[in-house]
Amino acid sequence: MKILFLNGPNLNLLGTREPAVYGTQTLSDIERLVCLEAEKGGHAAVFFQTNHEGVMIDRLQAAAGEFDAVVLNAGAYSHTSYALRDAIASIPVPVIEIHLSNIHGREEFRRTSVIAPVCRGQIVGFGVKSYVLGLYAALMKDGT
Amino acid sequence: MKILFLNGPNLNLLGTREPAVYGTQTLSDIERLVCLEAEKGGHAAVFFQTNHEGVMIDRLQAAAGEFDAVVLNAGAYSHTSYALRDAIASIPVPVIEIHLSNIHGREEFRRTSVIAPVCRGQIVGFGVKSYVLGLYAALMKDGT
Amino acid sequence: MKILFLNGPNLNLLGTREPAVYGTQTLSDIERLVCLEAEKGGHAAVFFQTNHEGVMIDRLQAAAGEFDAVVLNAGAYSHTSYALRDAIASIPVPVIEIHLSNIHGREEFRRTSVIAPVCRGQIVGFGVKSYVLGLYAALMKDGT
Amino acid sequence: MKILFLNGPNLNLLGTREPAVYGTQTLSDIERLVCLEAEKGGHAAVFFQTNHEGVMIDRLQAAAGEFDAVVLNAGAYSHTSYALRDAIASIPVPVIEIHLSNIHGREEFRRTSVIAPVCRGQIVGFGVKSYVLGLYAALMKDGT
Amino acid sequence: MKILFLNGPNLNLLGTREPAVYGTQTLSDIERLVCLEAEKGGHAAVFFQTNHEGVMIDRLQAAAGEFDAVVLNAGAYSHTSYALRDAIASIPVPVIEIHLSNIHGREEFRRTSVIAPVCRGQIVGFGVKSYVLGLYAALMKDGT
Amino acid sequence: MKILFLNGPNLNLLGTREPAVYGTQTLSDIERLVCLEAEKGGHAAVFFQTNHEGVMIDRLQAAAGEFDAVVLNAGAYSHTSYALRDAIASIPVPVIEIHLSNIHGREEFRRTSVIAPVCRGQIVGFGVKSYVLGLYAALMKDGT
Amino acid sequence: MKILFLNGPNLNLLGTREPAVYGTQTLSDIERLVCLEAEKGGHAAVFFQTNHEGVMIDRLQAAAGEFDAVVLNAGAYSHTSYALRDAIASIPVPVIEIHLSNIHGREEFRRTSVIAPVCRGQIVGFGVKSYVLGLYAALMKDGT
Amino acid sequence: MKILFLNGPNLNLLGTREPAVYGTQTLSDIERLVCLEAEKGGHAAVFFQTNHEGVMIDRLQAAAGEFDAVVLNAGAYSHTSYALRDAIASIPVPVIEIHLSNIHGREEFRRTSVIAPVCRGQIVGFGVKSYVLGLYAALMKDGT
Amino acid sequence: MKILFLNGPNLNLLGTREPAVYGTQTLSDIERLVCLEAEKGGHAAVFFQTNHEGVMIDRLQAAAGEFDAVVLNAGAYSHTSYALRDAIASIPVPVIEIHLSNIHGREEFRRTSVIAPVCRGQIVGFGVKSYVLGLYAALMKDGT
Amino acid sequence: MKILFLNGPNLNLLGTREPAVYGTQTLSDIERLVCLEAEKGGHAAVFFQTNHEGVMIDRLQAAAGEFDAVVLNAGAYSHTSYALRDAIASIPVPVIEIHLSNIHGREEFRRTSVIAPVCRGQIVGFGVKSYVLGLYAALMKDGT
Amino acid sequence: MKILFLNGPNLNLLGTREPAVYGTQTLSDIERLVCLEAEKGGHAAVFFQTNHEGVMIDRLQAAAGEFDAVVLNAGAYSHTSYALRDAIASIPVPVIEIHLSNIHGREEFRRTSVIAPVCRGQIVGFGVKSYVLGLYAALMKDGT
Amino acid sequence: MKILFLNGPNLNLLGTREPAVYGTQTLSDIERLVCLEAEKGGHAAVFFQTNHEGVMIDRLQAAAGEFDAVVLNAGAYSHTSYALRDAIASIPVPVIEIHLSNIHGREEFRRTSVIAPVCRGQIVGFGVKSYVLGLYAALMKDGT
Repeated sequence: MKILFLNGPNLNLLGTREPAVYGTQTLSDIERLVCLEAEKGGHAAVFFQTNHEGVMIDRLQAAAGEFDAVVLNAGAYSHTSYALRDAIASIPVPVIEIHLSNIHGREEFRRTSVIAPVCRGQIVGFGVKSYVLGLYAALMKDGT
Repeated sequence: MKILFLNGPNLNLLGTREPAVYGTQTLSDIERLVCLEAEKGGHAAVFFQTNHEGVMIDRLQAAAGEFDAVVLNAGAYSHTSYALRDAIASIPVPVIEIHLSNIHGREEFRRTSVIAPVCRGQIVGFGVKSYVLGLYAALMKDGT
Repeated sequence: MKILFLNGPNLNLLGTREPAVYGTQTLSDIERLVCLEAEKGGHAAVFFQTNHEGVMIDRLQAAAGEFDAVVLNAGAYSHTSYALRDAIASIPVPVIEIHLSNIHGREEFRRTSVIAPVCRGQIVGFGVKSYVLGLYAALMKDGT
Repeated sequence: MKILFLNGPNLNLLGTREPAVYGTQTLSDIERLVCLEAEKGGHAAVFFQTNHEGVMIDRLQAAAGEFDAVVLNAGAYSHTSYALRDAIASIPVPVIEIHLSNIHGREEFRRTSVIAPVCRGQIVGFGVKSYVLGLYAALMKDGT
Repeated sequence: MKILFLNGPNLNLLGTREPAVYGTQTLSDIERLVCLEAEKGGHAAVFFQTNHEGVMIDRLQAAAGEFDAVVLNAGAYSHTSYALRDAIASIPVPVIEIHLSNIHGREEFRRTSVIAPVCRGQIVGFGVKSYVLGLYAALMKDGT
Repeated sequence: MKILFLNGPNLNLLGTREPAVYGTQTLSDIERLVCLEAEKGGHAAVFFQTNHEGVMIDRLQAAAGEFDAVVLNAGAYSHTSYALRDAIASIPVPVIEIHLSNIHGREEFRRTSVIAPVCRGQIVGFGVKSYVLGLYAALMKDGT
Repeated sequence: MKILFLNGPNLNLLGTREPAVYGTQTLSDIERLVCLEAEKGGHAAVFFQTNHEGVMIDRLQAAAGEFDAVVLNAGAYSHTSYALRDAIASIPVPVIEIHLSNIHGREEFRRTSVIAPVCRGQIVGFGVKSYVLGLYAALMKDGT
Repeated sequence: MKILFLNGPNLNLLGTREPAVYGTQTLSDIERLVCLEAEKGGHAAVFFQTNHEGVMIDRLQAAAGEFDAVVLNAGAYSHTSYALRDAIASIPVPVIEIHLSNIHGREEFRRTSVIAPVCRGQIVGFGVKSYVLGLYAALMKDGT
Repeated sequence: MKILFLNGPNLNLLGTREPAVYGTQTLSDIERLVCLEAEKGGHAAVFFQTNHEGVMIDRLQAAAGEFDAVVLNAGAYSHTSYALRDAIASIPVPVIEIHLSNIHGREEFRRTSVIAPVCRGQIVGFGVKSYVLGLYAALMKDGT
Repeated sequence: MKILFLNGPNLNLLGTREPAVYGTQTLSDIERLVCLEAEKGGHAAVFFQTNHEGVMIDRLQAAAGEFDAVVLNAGAYSHTSYALRDAIASIPVPVIEIHLSNIHGREEFRRTSVIAPVCRGQIVGFGVKSYVLGLYAALMKDGT
Repeated sequence: MKILFLNGPNLNLLGTREPAVYGTQTLSDIERLVCLEAEKGGHAAVFFQTNHEGVMIDRLQAAAGEFDAVVLNAGAYSHTSYALRDAIASIPVPVIEIHLSNIHGREEFRRTSVIAPVCRGQIVGFGVKSYVLGLYAALMKDGT
Repeated sequence: MKILFLNGPNLNLLGTREPAVYGTQTLSDIERLVCLEAEKGGHAAVFFQTNHEGVMIDRLQAAAGEFDAVVLNAGAYSHTSYALRDAIASIPVPVIEIHLSNIHGREEFRRTSVIAPVCRGQIVGFGVKSYVLGLYAALMKDGT
């Protein structure tokens, strides 16, 4: 299987951005970790990051023919972007929402994800391991 | 007259995206239909689509000298983009808001358009024919 | 086709009532204009006005066998009358909601139409031309 | 005892109106059923239907000397009519609110009845049998 | 001057309806009292009561040429009728809103009058004397 | 038919608890009355009371094979227990919600029943006779 | 009778403060007008103004033995001062609330008076004549 | 490691309860699947189910010395039980919240989990595989 | 006098549970302290703790004949349990609500106690001394 | 120890003001009672009352060097005065909030105290004895 | 130019009050700093502080003839005082609102200033330098 | 020092866009004015404008090494962009929020800035001079 890990705004700053909340590993560190884990099972993980809502939508639309699943950390766009939500609902590829931090225990505005209702499922609060669990969840399509 | 039909996020997927809601015609089909109808009266219709909020604003600002009216289907940005609203309020060209589906009968978040108060008028719920009615509304500036 | 134009409370005052908002044409002026436009295509438009919510419901129910479509300007009842909404939902004739002014840019209470979810579509903000566009929308049932 | 069954807007369409929600029996069918059941015990049931809020108020006020109880299906007016509420509170005759469908499980606006607080009790969700239960409730004034 | 005292739903029951709240005087008693007071100054007071929202609107519209002012006790329609509000805003005759009870100290729904913003002023809580004060307020147009 | 009358918290105090609201009859009095009425038609009514939310859920789940219908007075759990709601939705036995008092005319928190949407219907405000009407409603499954 | 006219914050600026809203007459002008009117009937009107909430409360408490009624224009304190409300509720003297402008048609925060529920009645929107009507309302204690 | 899988109200009905939402596997099926998966890595999974909020709290408190982590499907108590939340916050054992269905895309009341803020993380929407992912998340404490 | 100190969910963990908020004394420490203080005046204090809402209700109902007053720390049930509230309102024994922490200065959900309106009074924020003050308040029934 | 009992608006009317709510004892009666009780233990209680918010703040600020604790009945200012709240938070002396009546069971606006979050604790509902309990709570600083 | 720096409740405690939020400089320190800065340009700055809302209003009204601008730190009255708002709107002198802390990032109630809409502008979050910036803003009336 | 002046959507239209609200100076005019003022003190000001939210985030992230401070007029994105907020919180450079108009006195949606809580401070309402004051605020880092 081929899985797209799509990362939204400010995730390129991981490792330096509020380390108390988001940890000290960079997005590259996570990419290495997840790709390795994917390859163990003969799968491929592809990472992409952008700060642009429009680029995220373009990328999701393009994922249709190319990927078997999308693991999506939409960052702050998760809380406001109905355009992203429509993109997810418009493509046949299953999308799994993940977050590093436990968004349900943070500021009020972070507790609602407007994209969650159209995602397959949501995994939050496990730090870097949210990505690994996202990978597992995506692969489970094949059965456990 | 020269009319810009500005289309927002995910409208490039028309025809394949949730056909039960949005119908089976593609944006190109609609473009052909509307251009033909415009040409009948000696007018010109120009179609443009983008998933980027910023590009929509750029395009609206540029429409000032070039077009006599804008028919705008802002998709999901209709419900949140005050930046788009400010762009509409900042240009002298009249803007007519349209939607394929009857947004007032769908999910709660789709029932409010933050751009509606600064548009000339709003036409929703007639499917592809919302575009044709939008054209008629734009042309009526000349009188009926 | 035979189209009923059903007009609600205070629309009999058009022309004298707050002309800055509603224009200077009377309901009779609009009736003449719309009937003429309908006749051009061999159709018939019938106008009816009442200030009584109950009479509007009676009239809608009676429209079933008699008309092919209803263009409805329910005035202020649009914002509160669930009884009207139930009547619209109960009849097989398609109903198109129109308003002279852009209700989405006026007082808070005018921004919600409780009948909109059960209407075919909504056209607002084009003044007298909202009636003409309503006619076009009704006729489009036959195709464009 | 003599019981008035007062029916509000659109209930004259029963049988044809959204049969999935309201069933296929007409208001006349229900009237026959209820009158028969009333007569079994030597009581009289009188049915009245109107789409006019004002007529409902007139009828309620007139019920005072004439009837021992009112079984009231106020339809959509149940959710907004404080005038009806005041009428119920102003007369000495007990009023029992009924609804065919389970209003508490439908659209948000149908879940609140502004007349309920001044009615004797409320019976909802039993279809045609809500009328029969309403009759029983009214007759129970005499004891079980 | 000629003043219309327009009375809404359930005010025909005054004297028998919840006397603890509304007092024991009938509407006829009030009419006599107010007409006498008006005649003292050479003015005329005309009373009218209806339970029908539509009739109230018809009557308000008709008041334009006939009366110098309207004193309006709209009863429970005060809290919901935007149609009545539009009628008041549409006519050139000044309208003074009155209530027998102090609506601001009663149930939550009675504390807001949707017609108040378009009335000249509001007088509430003085029982029968609200009518007399309404008369004085109407006559003050001539100066004190 | 065999009907379970399931009673929730504090209903064991009936007769002594706020008699102005709930009357002076004990739950045993009601049980006797209802059982007698059931037996008249050859049916059986079984009463059960508990203050424990968990026990109510256990009892509902167990009712599946054993009873033809449940008449449920869930007391204060009606307003908060989504667990009870899920239990009702999970079993094939029809559940009828009843309350002694007219909950729609009492404190704000009592006006919403979170279990109502998944019950067959709701009967409130008839005191002890709510139980009898609940019995009739349950038996009506067999036809009137 | 002896009537206290108690005036709250910024009313000392009347005549110069936002004349479009509050008119061009000063508080002294109003005092002269009202005293004259009171003296006609052999009554006395006493005016007092302060910008201090605490002084208003002191003055209200002291009014008990000294005055037969209080006509109160509490200005902006009307919308927030529960302390003033408690003072009004604590004294046996009747208090009549007045406002120059129609507060129900202005900014949202001005539409609620927290003192209204404990006042005898409320008169708003008649400009200077609100004071005269307040005087009449106070004197009516003696009968009309 | 030893992991407690604590299951709340109505989860004993899995397999028969609303299979369209919750699938056709019973809780025993899930237990078998998860225990097997745990044993593969030399770990132990223990399943427990109860419909009683109090028992869930007792069990959580007792888990402290006995288990290394708790995977918690609190069912409907997730949305209301602050007592459960306090229990989770009071024990040193990490708790991982899981749900079979995607609660963020269902009824409004299911979209908020009051226990989420004090859990380690949340995994929802993967059906039976939510349990497996919960197991993985719990084991990851040891590193990936 | 004989006073019941009824303690709700998680209070058995006192001393180990979030000591920064709740202090380091166990419930047994508090029991010893309070009993000693009670005995000084010849009174008896009895402590009881449970995590079960239903058991709390059972215990409150049983307190009627046995105790002169109840000092109640209902823990998190204070914020949601209308069933507990009904139990308190149903018994003739006075109930005094206490909390260790100042609930009015903590999370939003802790700031409202649904049982407070039917308790005699409320004492919060004094840590262990809330229990002692609760004892004093209970004994004051005898006069100071 | 030296304790300031600071009393806010309308508390000087105690004994005559709404005796059904606040009892028949005057503030002087309470002062005598509390001073006596304080002197028993060799402490001093000082009473002060004002209707002025500003004076309350001045007095609180001045209490710093002079008193060991403040027992504060801020009356209606409790519900709105963030200035008072800031004063409490700005001084090193502990402040204990008290109320005669059970504010949590009265009008909606009385149920929130904006000063509570910065007070040491809150004691409400015990009438005159709230003052005595406030004294005890203040003295407990020394240990029980 | 002559500028009034009007300071509201608790600002006299600056330097000792919550230094982590408000810094360690006293109001006198700030006064010295600002006066010096004003004198550099040949202007005069006058400082005034009070805890009394009424005194603030008196002072603002008196500023009209005497000062060219007012720099206003209204402390906690900013969030509730519509009386202060009316005073600002009533005088011809421009008023500039300042705050030491960034009120938009603190407690919910501090995020709204009810006086802001009628002030010339607002400067918050720069500590002592908010005063200096306020001075600059006031002087800019003369041009930069 | 080197200061970035980052300008968001529609600010490129300054001078032509709603001049009654935003003035007649173009962004270039402002740039000239501010750069001149900066150079006076030996500092550098750099202006950048974009309509794209993503570009604003990119630019803010890049500002870290390059600038000493950012003066940010985020236009309409101020009211909705949590992504921008996260970017500001993620970089070590201080960000000062400015607006030309007094956003707190305009439409409801403009009164809340979601980026304000993570900015150093906010300056609004001084027109072009908001930029100059922003410059001063940024430079004050060096002391006054």
